[in-house]
Amino acid sequence: MNVLWIYAHPDPASLNGALRDEGVTTLRDLGHDVRESDLYAMRWNPIVDEIATVPEDVRIEHEKLGWADTVIVQFPLWWADTPAILKGWFDRVFVQGYGYDYRDETGHTLRYGNGVLAGKRAMVIVTAGAHEDSLGPRGAHGSLDDLLFNVQHATLFYTGMTVLPPLKVTGTTRMPPERFDCVVEQLRKRLHSLETTDPLPYRTQDGGDYDRRLVLLPKVAPGQTGYGAHLTA
Amino acid sequence: MNVLWIYAHPDPASLNGALRDEGVTTLRDLGHDVRESDLYAMRWNPIVDEIATVPEDVRIEHEKLGWADTVIVQFPLWWADTPAILKGWFDRVFVQGYGYDYRDETGHTLRYGNGVLAGKRAMVIVTAGAHEDSLGPRGAHGSLDDLLFNVQHATLFYTGMTVLPPLKVTGTTRMPPERFDCVVEQLRKRLHSLETTDPLPYRTQDGGDYDRRLVLLPKVAPGQTGYGAHLTA
Repeated sequence: MNVLWIYAHPDPASLNGALRDEGVTTLRDLGHDVRESDLYAMRWNPIVDEIATVPEDVRIEHEKLGWADTVIVQFPLWWADTPAILKGWFDRVFVQGYGYDYRDETGHTLRYGNGVLAGKRAMVIVTAGAHEDSLGPRGAHGSLDDLLFNVQHATLFYTGMTVLPPLKVTGTTRMPPERFDCVVEQLRKRLHSLETTDPLPYRTQDGGDYDRRLVLLPKVAPGQTGYGAHLTA
Repeated sequence: MNVLWIYAHPDPASLNGALRDEGVTTLRDLGHDVRESDLYAMRWNPIVDEIATVPEDVRIEHEKLGWADTVIVQFPLWWADTPAILKGWFDRVFVQGYGYDYRDETGHTLRYGNGVLAGKRAMVIVTAGAHEDSLGPRGAHGSLDDLLFNVQHATLFYTGMTVLPPLKVTGTTRMPPERFDCVVEQLRKRLHSLETTDPLPYRTQDGGDYDRRLVLLPKVAPGQTGYGAHLTA
């Protein structure tokens, strides 16, 4: 398998750095090929400008994505969201005609389950200083699953990728060594089962659940609102 | 009133640029003082590094925030989220001991309705290419109110600001001139009523609705989950 590991933490000696190292080693030990987009190490430029042509650094990322079967997106949660450098990877790499406005020969826009990255799998690995309860369904920070909707549904799934359940590492402000060992074990398990894990059951644009304005049909999850309505289970 | 207008669009000749110009003129005509953080014009550096001291550009933003009574945050919705340059304004300006880990003399962390920016008002102005239905409660992109939770609740309200309902301008991909006039009128109305508009009724950390782990008490919005549970109405 060809795996692209996108990584957005400034400090290689951090928890995130350790997990990235463990993850890449695990995948290589399993016989997979791994390439990395280590955004801080690459000094990735996250700022969209008004230039119409596709710059060389973006073209390289397109080539990596084309090569990959599976994409890992790893980041620490900052202000309930991705770090700016990662947001700017999405902003710049997913250009018009590629990430969005990607059309078939009839002019139909492919998105939400189909698109330029169709057939590839994606998995988010996220760390958060806040503890699990405060990021739970009734936690003040909002549920971590809801906070990941913009990345997982509106970005990764939008471009056609199949999205696996995220690996969520919470409460990282205080992490005793035995907990770290446990997190590494979870990570290895998830990487061993990358090819077999059931993805998040998002509804696809063209699966008959949405109308032409991208609104759920009345018969689908009747009366339900919120992000959960976009999952079949 | 002292108003800080934070603006995150690359093109001054865009719809966003026009709304910013109209907004700043309106406020000055009303007799308010306006300062701007035009992030593209400032060539704002959005990338957090590992340097421990507060850099000069961040210190200047702290000074502006200290001066302001009201903060406007204007951006186009990109990938269901803020542009990277704005995300990196939050990432870098809201440093530890200021934006988070802001404590009173007893060591109690002030956040969610109290904090370094307590007493100030904030309002988001967001534009989105997608039309209103697809950003509604059952729209595929997720409801725009939900998508703004990370900025409005987890960031602006977290640091102590009172958050006014956002001005949402959707369907900007096709905007006829008469619609633009209507949007400008909405903007002017919202700016005229900045001091009197009722804020979003978010529950405060210390208002008796959350336990010590920042989870809603069982008696509060019983059984309810999702972002809506953090509003009193």
